[in-house]
Amino acid sequence: MKITLNSPLDMHLHLRDGDMLKLTAPLSADFAGAVIMPNLVPPVTTPAAMQAYDARIAAALDGADFTRYMTLFFTPLGEKELIAAKEAPGFFGFKLYPAGITTNSEGGVSDMAQADKTLRLMEEMGIPLLVHGESHGFVMDREQEFLAVYRHLATKYPKLKLSMEHITTAEAVRLLDEFPNICATVTLQHLIITLDDVAGGALRPHLFCKPIAKRPEDRDALLRAALEGHPRLMFGSDSAPHPRCKKEACGCAAGVFTGPVALPKLAEIFAAHGALENLQAFVSGNACQWYGLQPVQKTVTLEDTPMSVPASYRSYGEQVVPMYAGESIGWSIVR
Amino acid sequence: MKITLNSPLDMHLHLRDGDMLKLTAPLSADFAGAVIMPNLVPPVTTPAAMQAYDARIAAALDGADFTRYMTLFFTPLGEKELIAAKEAPGFFGFKLYPAGITTNSEGGVSDMAQADKTLRLMEEMGIPLLVHGESHGFVMDREQEFLAVYRHLATKYPKLKLSMEHITTAEAVRLLDEFPNICATVTLQHLIITLDDVAGGALRPHLFCKPIAKRPEDRDALLRAALEGHPRLMFGSDSAPHPRCKKEACGCAAGVFTGPVALPKLAEIFAAHGALENLQAFVSGNACQWYGLQPVQKTVTLEDTPMSVPASYRSYGEQVVPMYAGESIGWSIVR
Repeated sequence: MKITLNSPLDMHLHLRDGDMLKLTAPLSADFAGAVIMPNLVPPVTTPAAMQAYDARIAAALDGADFTRYMTLFFTPLGEKELIAAKEAPGFFGFKLYPAGITTNSEGGVSDMAQADKTLRLMEEMGIPLLVHGESHGFVMDREQEFLAVYRHLATKYPKLKLSMEHITTAEAVRLLDEFPNICATVTLQHLIITLDDVAGGALRPHLFCKPIAKRPEDRDALLRAALEGHPRLMFGSDSAPHPRCKKEACGCAAGVFTGPVALPKLAEIFAAHGALENLQAFVSGNACQWYGLQPVQKTVTLEDTPMSVPASYRSYGEQVVPMYAGESIGWSIVR
Repeated sequence: MKITLNSPLDMHLHLRDGDMLKLTAPLSADFAGAVIMPNLVPPVTTPAAMQAYDARIAAALDGADFTRYMTLFFTPLGEKELIAAKEAPGFFGFKLYPAGITTNSEGGVSDMAQADKTLRLMEEMGIPLLVHGESHGFVMDREQEFLAVYRHLATKYPKLKLSMEHITTAEAVRLLDEFPNICATVTLQHLIITLDDVAGGALRPHLFCKPIAKRPEDRDALLRAALEGHPRLMFGSDSAPHPRCKKEACGCAAGVFTGPVALPKLAEIFAAHGALENLQAFVSGNACQWYGLQPVQKTVTLEDTPMSVPASYRSYGEQVVPMYAGESIGWSIVR
């Protein structure tokens, strides 16, 4: 069996910086492009910093054909600053983090009311808002508790291009159905794993991410929506590399590195459920439709020939462990 | 402030074997005695193996005054075998594990009906049954799903001395209230932590145990019952050492090592809630009452002078990391 995808997009990607960027950018570039997250240290808050980061990514890609849809770390901004952002080449939208909610998000928003003017302007100007939607509550409740904020934003700014990033619950899928002016991304791992995989047997740090994997009924609802080709659910890997030493140490950092395995594993899953015909929409069509994107022409052919996933990827003095490290995936990219 | 406890008992303790036993036995012997778990490799299933293990523990204690209430790993047995167990010096009761539910429990019970005859005999003979009560379901539901088994056992064998070991949910506390013929143990960590502490920030392997820490409302219900001196709730540390390398590696083993910090931390907690007068019942009186124990006379005095907890304990080539490693506890044992 084979499938050829047109211009697959990863709508949520972390590439980090420095040597880690050099290692992970090429490993994430099977896609035609990706929305690049801005939570560096310090976060990417200005068009100048964004363009400099984009240039570093371009250098790390070493000529690979891969569009960077760049984001800025959301901070309250005025009209002039928003115009400057919108006009900056490569700019895609703002990523909003509640303060301190995940890796390098300390400078995020602590009171949504402070964001009001900026959001009103973004709505008028058609600038997308991508949100890491978690409260500071109990870890299994954080996303569900945040849904009230999404509801508020979708109601108060009805024309805002609002995305619930990396949703993990059945409740979020229901909200997606309820509000036609909200879209969402979902990761590879949240279509597959539950908290059982992270902490039900032994503790598995390489599957630890934020938001944490939830209950079986949550995973099932997310998978169902993806397989059915929900028109406002898009693939966003949230591929989030950390050095091996930070994942396997006491106090493991949150993030699953899926860049190099995402497309083969998605093809395997969609094929196993007889839903291959909906994969194009999930990994590209829905995003193009929602955001009006016209990505570069790039086809990726996948076939049901196994891919052996390395135990880790090493280069530039860095080492990252991917999901399915040392295992085999039923599908692979035809190179 | 000071409190002197008479013959404190740890009603659920893992000491392991070999060099790890030599390291952990003295570190767990502040108590007057403890119920010793039988999940060695292979599990302790015969009186002979139990007495040999008890002798190894005695040697490791190096003269410390510490009674071992020995348990056998539950397997279906006939009357003759039960009599032999009951007559074996040091025997306390049977520990029942659902097959494969936790560390070294592969030989446990997979069908409770197979246990019927043995349980009927144990009921007649007054032999305690201590149960690791978890289903094989989703990790956050395992204890709650198992409550039906406790309910069944308490109803079918009304005179059986039945203990729900290391309870972790508000629902289990409610079952304890409902059935006066059930008792329960609770650990130190389940009075303090929730899943947030294990996986809400960074992943913290040294707080990873089975059953896993649950929700804030569960922790609160357990703490309330302990502080109020619930007459059938007993302290059982479930102190469960693993080598540091197995806790901090990928695929961390389940268990929190609390032996050396349990009494100081309990005193701190009970004092902070103005409930010091109920500590004696929680760490000794309730167990003596329920099981008719008459432990050796041993007093332990605690005072509100800080204890510095070492980053780890090392000896005999083994290294274990205790709860509160490198931190300070508000109370300490007067030596």
